[in-house]
Amino acid sequence: MIETLRRYVPILDWGRTYTRDALQSDLLAAVIVTIMLIPQSLAYALLAGLPPEAGLYASILPIILYAIFGTSRALAVGPVAVVSLMTAAAVGQVAEQGTAGYAVAALTLAVLSGAILLAMGLFRLGFVANFLSHPVIAGFITASGILIAASQLKHILGVEAHGHTLIEMVASLVAHLPETNLVTLVIGVAATAFLFWVRKGLKPFLIARGVRPRLADIAQKAGPVGAVVVTTLLVWGLGLSQTAGVSIVGAVPQSLPPFTLPGLSLDLVSALFIPALLISVIGFVESISVAQTLAAKKRQRIDPDQELIGLGAANIGAGFTGGYPVTGGFARSAVNFDAGAETPAAGAFTAIGLAIAALALTPLIFFLPKATLAATIIVAVLSLVDFSILKKTWGYAKADFVAVAATILLTLGLGVEAGVSAGVILSIALHLYKTSKPHVAEVGLVPGTHHFRNILRHHVKTHPEVVTLRIDESLYFANARFLEDLVQDRVTADSPVKHVVLMCSAVNEIDTSALESLEAVNERLKSMGVKLHLSEVKGPVTDRLKRSHFLDELTGEVFLSQYDAWVALTKKTPGPALQAAQ
Amino acid sequence: MIETLRRYVPILDWGRTYTRDALQSDLLAAVIVTIMLIPQSLAYALLAGLPPEAGLYASILPIILYAIFGTSRALAVGPVAVVSLMTAAAVGQVAEQGTAGYAVAALTLAVLSGAILLAMGLFRLGFVANFLSHPVIAGFITASGILIAASQLKHILGVEAHGHTLIEMVASLVAHLPETNLVTLVIGVAATAFLFWVRKGLKPFLIARGVRPRLADIAQKAGPVGAVVVTTLLVWGLGLSQTAGVSIVGAVPQSLPPFTLPGLSLDLVSALFIPALLISVIGFVESISVAQTLAAKKRQRIDPDQELIGLGAANIGAGFTGGYPVTGGFARSAVNFDAGAETPAAGAFTAIGLAIAALALTPLIFFLPKATLAATIIVAVLSLVDFSILKKTWGYAKADFVAVAATILLTLGLGVEAGVSAGVILSIALHLYKTSKPHVAEVGLVPGTHHFRNILRHHVKTHPEVVTLRIDESLYFANARFLEDLVQDRVTADSPVKHVVLMCSAVNEIDTSALESLEAVNERLKSMGVKLHLSEVKGPVTDRLKRSHFLDELTGEVFLSQYDAWVALTKKTPGPALQAAQ
Repeated sequence: MIETLRRYVPILDWGRTYTRDALQSDLLAAVIVTIMLIPQSLAYALLAGLPPEAGLYASILPIILYAIFGTSRALAVGPVAVVSLMTAAAVGQVAEQGTAGYAVAALTLAVLSGAILLAMGLFRLGFVANFLSHPVIAGFITASGILIAASQLKHILGVEAHGHTLIEMVASLVAHLPETNLVTLVIGVAATAFLFWVRKGLKPFLIARGVRPRLADIAQKAGPVGAVVVTTLLVWGLGLSQTAGVSIVGAVPQSLPPFTLPGLSLDLVSALFIPALLISVIGFVESISVAQTLAAKKRQRIDPDQELIGLGAANIGAGFTGGYPVTGGFARSAVNFDAGAETPAAGAFTAIGLAIAALALTPLIFFLPKATLAATIIVAVLSLVDFSILKKTWGYAKADFVAVAATILLTLGLGVEAGVSAGVILSIALHLYKTSKPHVAEVGLVPGTHHFRNILRHHVKTHPEVVTLRIDESLYFANARFLEDLVQDRVTADSPVKHVVLMCSAVNEIDTSALESLEAVNERLKSMGVKLHLSEVKGPVTDRLKRSHFLDELTGEVFLSQYDAWVALTKKTPGPALQAAQ
Repeated sequence: MIETLRRYVPILDWGRTYTRDALQSDLLAAVIVTIMLIPQSLAYALLAGLPPEAGLYASILPIILYAIFGTSRALAVGPVAVVSLMTAAAVGQVAEQGTAGYAVAALTLAVLSGAILLAMGLFRLGFVANFLSHPVIAGFITASGILIAASQLKHILGVEAHGHTLIEMVASLVAHLPETNLVTLVIGVAATAFLFWVRKGLKPFLIARGVRPRLADIAQKAGPVGAVVVTTLLVWGLGLSQTAGVSIVGAVPQSLPPFTLPGLSLDLVSALFIPALLISVIGFVESISVAQTLAAKKRQRIDPDQELIGLGAANIGAGFTGGYPVTGGFARSAVNFDAGAETPAAGAFTAIGLAIAALALTPLIFFLPKATLAATIIVAVLSLVDFSILKKTWGYAKADFVAVAATILLTLGLGVEAGVSAGVILSIALHLYKTSKPHVAEVGLVPGTHHFRNILRHHVKTHPEVVTLRIDESLYFANARFLEDLVQDRVTADSPVKHVVLMCSAVNEIDTSALESLEAVNERLKSMGVKLHLSEVKGPVTDRLKRSHFLDELTGEVFLSQYDAWVALTKKTPGPALQAAQ
């Protein structure tokens, strides 16, 4: 009972042994992460098409819920770039940006996504995430980074522009180019350049000037706050929002996260279900990758199914407190880890920091230019863009290359949902295609050994009456007919054959379709006076074959080893081969 | 050039060597098949919701086109039960039965299906049919048989009823039960009983009375014609259509197949595309199974891609001559084969016979009761119903059982398209699920041999510092993460381990995702001071690994055989093991 509770509520486990040292580490990490998260949360809310406070709200209760239910000690949950973009794409289909319906749909999306994650966790369906192949994820993240950066250019230019695909965005930007607000452009470009420099150059710059590395590190993380403060003061001091029309964040309510009710009408839920599923899976994959990478560094373990429950609770929390879908982000988790967070309590302290910000600091960002937030996003997401996966897969596996290239092109050309769906479907289809035409080698005995090798690659002994085919794949419906054709081709072309041996050392499964194909092969060979034998059939496969009638009907025998088959069928004594092996 | 032409137009091949003997055999087979096909074609058109002549038209030009382009010597192409039902389901969604739009949509469906088959043939995509697993097909055929029989009950009862699912049909029948036409019911039940007796009892009955088996066989095949003649005469002689309201076939145009134009509006084509795809794949699978079974009996070969071209041409022909989708049927092909058809010319002669029937015999069927045609269908399709696949898969492979059961239930409950789609998707999903949790065995050396076996199943030698894991599955995206977890679990739990050997004898592929997982495993083990080794890696897998950087980064070695790995890592001499093997 206690054990079960502890499994589902990990805080009961680490909470009992919480020490003063861990408290200090967690508090320090929380301060650093809070400073980093304030501008980031506002910016990602903007990316999702929501008012900036939604980003803060999405970081408060979800962090606390994850701290209670999640297993990772360093994962920081909240809005992330890719999920924010997917939220904008999904909610944009059912409501107009800026309307009350839009915010409600975002809440619904969060609750739906939370419910899906929770259900996957309770039914232990974490393996579903495995169907996203690494190259498809890499391609999707790269394409999303480009899309996100492109979507922020309108804020840098200070124009209105729309679109969910790269072509739409670029076309809309070009059409609105003449309306560019030059002051906004200067602020945006300067902020972007500054933030790039902070990311790459600030730390070495400070260290060269004698600042301690640890402090230089914190300064680097606080860089975006510097950009926020300077540009806000500039816009306020020079009155740029009134005189030059610089777009600013404006009034943000000064409150703790409000209690909100997501819309749960059947129409809305059914329209958002598939997007919520995609967001859940993408969010889970991102989160679990980060959590596992960080856990491995400290030799800790992550329980993927419990992670689903933690993320599910976080998203449901986001849906009831004015947020939108959240997940474990790479950047914030890495900062949390590097800052020395020891337990999920660091997350809870971060939540308190953000709650104070939401209560007290929001009036200070009234004059914050949107261009600065856009610059924050652009600098963050461009680090996600990495085309090396194309080169890697091209050299290693063309099928994976096709899947990546399609994912990137479709994400850019048709949007995030089409892109990631196409990537998943294509990966599965290509895998099935490959296994539907398995590698089959005709093998012969390597003289002086018990080993059998491909007759095309090696000098081996063969026998005119015995054909041995080594099947390098599990036999299942997609390749069942292939096997029938193969045996038929090999045997009609070569009349002296009296025995066909299927060497099954690499056959891990024989499903019902393949069983029926084997029965058909057995029947056809029987009518031609040829016997069918099997060799090196694995334990689990044999166990299953014994439950069918196939072994009774088989014209030949089942040999434990291919060498036994060779000896029995070629009527040779085992002597010479063994002697040679001595 | 000539060779290419001969490949795509097989008639050029067998046509050159056509003999007088073959002509006689083909003519006799054609007569028998024609007699069988007349009532069957009329009945299937009724099942598809089309006027009866559509069934005749669908059997004339398509047969000739298949004879030119197809490779099977015995396959008889025309309307079949399952495809007729699927046509009714598909066309019923876009047009009202009995309207001109309905017939036009059926033509469009035939042309679309033909175009899909042709394209699949030209692009050599015949393997797509492999994704329908045998159990799913068996379940689908069984459920379709039940649906078809249920759909014909309204003709036996003489009432109006509707519905595309079993529940709808039964509900509609029950609602209309009070309107039952008793005379129609008597005719329908008598015809059904007679036809069942013809199928089971006529042949032994005649043989027992001294009739030659060959003649008894022909009599059995002509049985449905007998039922047609007797019931038609009865209705005509007693004036049952006027006095008792027995529903009859009525006026059928007396003509050769007309030239018809399918509707090709974008709306119609896009609405019918998915149904056409399903009909193509189901039709192709049925056809190729029949063709291969019959070809194997005469040791002939079928070229699946050329079959696609033959069936594609036949369907396009059906679309332009007043027909609807066709395929190679089991019953008619078996009759053709048994009747001694030697070449596709038998099909051409059958087409001539049916053309004569369409021109001359249609006035004779004016008074043919629809109940007789319904009886023909019911008796034909109930032979397709076979639930043994449920028992077989339950005993052999539970995953296949789930796929079959779902296919049957969904076909009956939601209709043919939902049923077959669910079957395909579920088969693929279950296959992926199985391979995502592969069988991995920790192995040890069988004393006195070079063989390694599961430590849980056998008494084997192990070494505390060396863990050998035999992976019984290809490594790809769906199980990449599984491998990471597995190694991590095994090695953190057992601190003395210094070497992990992955035995890859059953690994047929390592895709990019799995490569990245191996890299991650290598890195993690390295940070723990443990070396990762591979053994028994196959040629194609090694070739590919050499194209990546993995082998450079690998902390351990790649051993040709597991025994080599054991010897090297346990620092033992190979002496004792080999001596024992002598």
